[in-house]
Amino acid sequence: MKKLVAEFIGTFWLVFGGCGSAILACNFPGNGIAYVGVAWAFGLTVVTMAYAFGHISGAHLNPAVSIGAWVAGRLETKNLLPYIVAQVLGGIAAAALLYVIATGNGSAIGSFATNGYGDLSPGKYGMIAALVIEIVLTFIFLLVILGSTDERAPKGFAGLAIGLCLTLIHLISIPVTNTSVNPARSTSQAIFVGGEAISQLWLFWLAPIIGAILAGLVYKYFLALKD
Amino acid sequence: MKKLVAEFIGTFWLVFGGCGSAILACNFPGNGIAYVGVAWAFGLTVVTMAYAFGHISGAHLNPAVSIGAWVAGRLETKNLLPYIVAQVLGGIAAAALLYVIATGNGSAIGSFATNGYGDLSPGKYGMIAALVIEIVLTFIFLLVILGSTDERAPKGFAGLAIGLCLTLIHLISIPVTNTSVNPARSTSQAIFVGGEAISQLWLFWLAPIIGAILAGLVYKYFLALKD
Amino acid sequence: MKKLVAEFIGTFWLVFGGCGSAILACNFPGNGIAYVGVAWAFGLTVVTMAYAFGHISGAHLNPAVSIGAWVAGRLETKNLLPYIVAQVLGGIAAAALLYVIATGNGSAIGSFATNGYGDLSPGKYGMIAALVIEIVLTFIFLLVILGSTDERAPKGFAGLAIGLCLTLIHLISIPVTNTSVNPARSTSQAIFVGGEAISQLWLFWLAPIIGAILAGLVYKYFLALKD
Amino acid sequence: MKKLVAEFIGTFWLVFGGCGSAILACNFPGNGIAYVGVAWAFGLTVVTMAYAFGHISGAHLNPAVSIGAWVAGRLETKNLLPYIVAQVLGGIAAAALLYVIATGNGSAIGSFATNGYGDLSPGKYGMIAALVIEIVLTFIFLLVILGSTDERAPKGFAGLAIGLCLTLIHLISIPVTNTSVNPARSTSQAIFVGGEAISQLWLFWLAPIIGAILAGLVYKYFLALKD
Repeated sequence: MKKLVAEFIGTFWLVFGGCGSAILACNFPGNGIAYVGVAWAFGLTVVTMAYAFGHISGAHLNPAVSIGAWVAGRLETKNLLPYIVAQVLGGIAAAALLYVIATGNGSAIGSFATNGYGDLSPGKYGMIAALVIEIVLTFIFLLVILGSTDERAPKGFAGLAIGLCLTLIHLISIPVTNTSVNPARSTSQAIFVGGEAISQLWLFWLAPIIGAILAGLVYKYFLALKD
Repeated sequence: MKKLVAEFIGTFWLVFGGCGSAILACNFPGNGIAYVGVAWAFGLTVVTMAYAFGHISGAHLNPAVSIGAWVAGRLETKNLLPYIVAQVLGGIAAAALLYVIATGNGSAIGSFATNGYGDLSPGKYGMIAALVIEIVLTFIFLLVILGSTDERAPKGFAGLAIGLCLTLIHLISIPVTNTSVNPARSTSQAIFVGGEAISQLWLFWLAPIIGAILAGLVYKYFLALKD
Repeated sequence: MKKLVAEFIGTFWLVFGGCGSAILACNFPGNGIAYVGVAWAFGLTVVTMAYAFGHISGAHLNPAVSIGAWVAGRLETKNLLPYIVAQVLGGIAAAALLYVIATGNGSAIGSFATNGYGDLSPGKYGMIAALVIEIVLTFIFLLVILGSTDERAPKGFAGLAIGLCLTLIHLISIPVTNTSVNPARSTSQAIFVGGEAISQLWLFWLAPIIGAILAGLVYKYFLALKD
Repeated sequence: MKKLVAEFIGTFWLVFGGCGSAILACNFPGNGIAYVGVAWAFGLTVVTMAYAFGHISGAHLNPAVSIGAWVAGRLETKNLLPYIVAQVLGGIAAAALLYVIATGNGSAIGSFATNGYGDLSPGKYGMIAALVIEIVLTFIFLLVILGSTDERAPKGFAGLAIGLCLTLIHLISIPVTNTSVNPARSTSQAIFVGGEAISQLWLFWLAPIIGAILAGLVYKYFLALKD
């Protein structure tokens, strides 16, 4: 139960901090934090939760991470579905609060930091580019998670490596898909925007999960210590 | 006594560095550090003090942090009020020096990095949005503090996690309230600006303290190891 | 074999993340990450790989690093050439995928983050300036690598120090050569651009290797503990 | 002798990286790193040298740091003057190389990242503001150095805390004095610019040394463990 509370609050924080910075501060006239600031915000949600809750739940905060960890034998099967449910609910709770705050000066919510391709891509990148980049980025993200938490890696640094990896992922790919690599984060924002954002949501479940499963297999068979 | 010297100097540094960067460098023509730079400055005041003085006083630097730590059983009751007094005085000392420096090129002090809502909010967000975001952000800030200093967390990394959490908090919320989560920081600036800044000060004591108390209770009853 | 998989994927990530951020996000209208963002991206590829794969291959990701490590007696001779081949192939694989993604909105690839001097230098710096800065920066980069992995240095922090050094190197020198210090990174981009980028490639093998050899010798004879 | 080689190369790197980023990349059209990037560059020179050479010489890289460490009983008297000489020479060597590179596209060196007040202050701040801010910032810088290397502080993190403190110091004060807190860094740049930069150099020796001595005394008598 503690684990699910931690995953709920942790994913709440990932969406509240990452998407919140994008919605409230990215384009603020004259002093906006721009994509660099949003990239730091997403990464730092993971750094902070990794050290706050890593010892409680592992601080996955992302269904693709839980699936990749499960493929690599790092998460028990009985925990997989409850983790994912807690993550999606945490994300939705954050999006609801962001809705209240973002409209607190009379603004509309605009694109609300949704992910998308084609017309919904910030740089109008097509579906193939979106699929490729989301698969590749989630693949490497999971390798960093599995490698930095390997028993051979320096103790304690995984939270920094994993969080900074999410910052890096955003530095590369916000123009392409607004960066997902996390189906819970994509779902929470799409629900509030509706329309085409919902009809594109499949890609932001499919691509991260493919990348995560590939990473789980590659790490297990090519990089992990054999027993 | 050493503890109070550390809290005084530490909160001095939080206000001098965080508010100082906002007052002196945020809007510098052509090369201003903008909100991203101010967010880093606030967070790095905490990172630096956590490693410099954490072993002396815990480096709270914030009445809400001291109250949350007290609720969670991490601060002795007899230290609570002296800590808060030292923090407020340290903040005021920093604001006084910033006043001398900021006017050293003939400028007026302007908004002097005060916190506010409504007309005093950078993005004109109303009182409800301000209350919600200050409560939520202080709530998570305290969870990060309590979680990363838990005996189960990796040793030594709490200073980074907590400081980077404050950076993240500023990346999200400067447009809404200019970001407080710290009554001492709000008080020191409001005193020098006066007027409406003083009449709004209640919110920047109330909301952070509510968030901190909630976090102390949630951590104690839902996340901490039971004896 | 595990080591070569790690060097291949690691150098793939260095080029995909570093050059990818430059190609896709540096100049994005209104919210581009600019040179600061690109500098962070390059550095964070190394931070992430150092913690993910450092315990597997050492995470060199760079022929100059492998040569410098070999000169200082930190890499076995039989591993030197295979490491370099894996690094160059990993870089080329990343550039190929970046080609697919970058053209996914109908754009041309432009300068594709190639290194260069003279007409190909972002700030039109000449060959001498390019040689000097690439030698100096690789020299210091290798000293940081050798020093921070010295047995006397604090355990576990080398990945941060080395990755942040690459960030710093980019903060200094993107305007001069677009920053190489890594022949694999220069090669992968030049291949896709062709023309003058290929004819200038010699400098981005020669200068980093000179800097790395000098650092290996200076560390071995002036800074390392004597047996 | 190893110690002096380390201080020479380390201060070379502080000036080459910090001032180099300011001279070459700060104002680059369209993608300049601005003051935020320069602040990171200065801080990261210290992070990298702390982990590379901290175990050799302590990585002071700054006469004020050596003087403060000496006051606090952390540096032997016989090493004080040799350290300062090595630091000043390292800085001058870096400035000479920067001169070669910066003029490598036909540019003049401009202000060459010199420190100054009044007419030479980026924001035209007067002498009193310059004195106050340089004393305060060096005072806190030394407290962070002494506190984070105290035997009670977490092991290994001092290099991060100290380097990030230098980043923070620059985020606050570049507009006021172009930020010194380091007489070696001020001297190397003033020598190449000459004129008024030389006649103002006294302040950038005096103020950092006053701040450092105060910090050494405060730490020793108010914050350190008594025997």
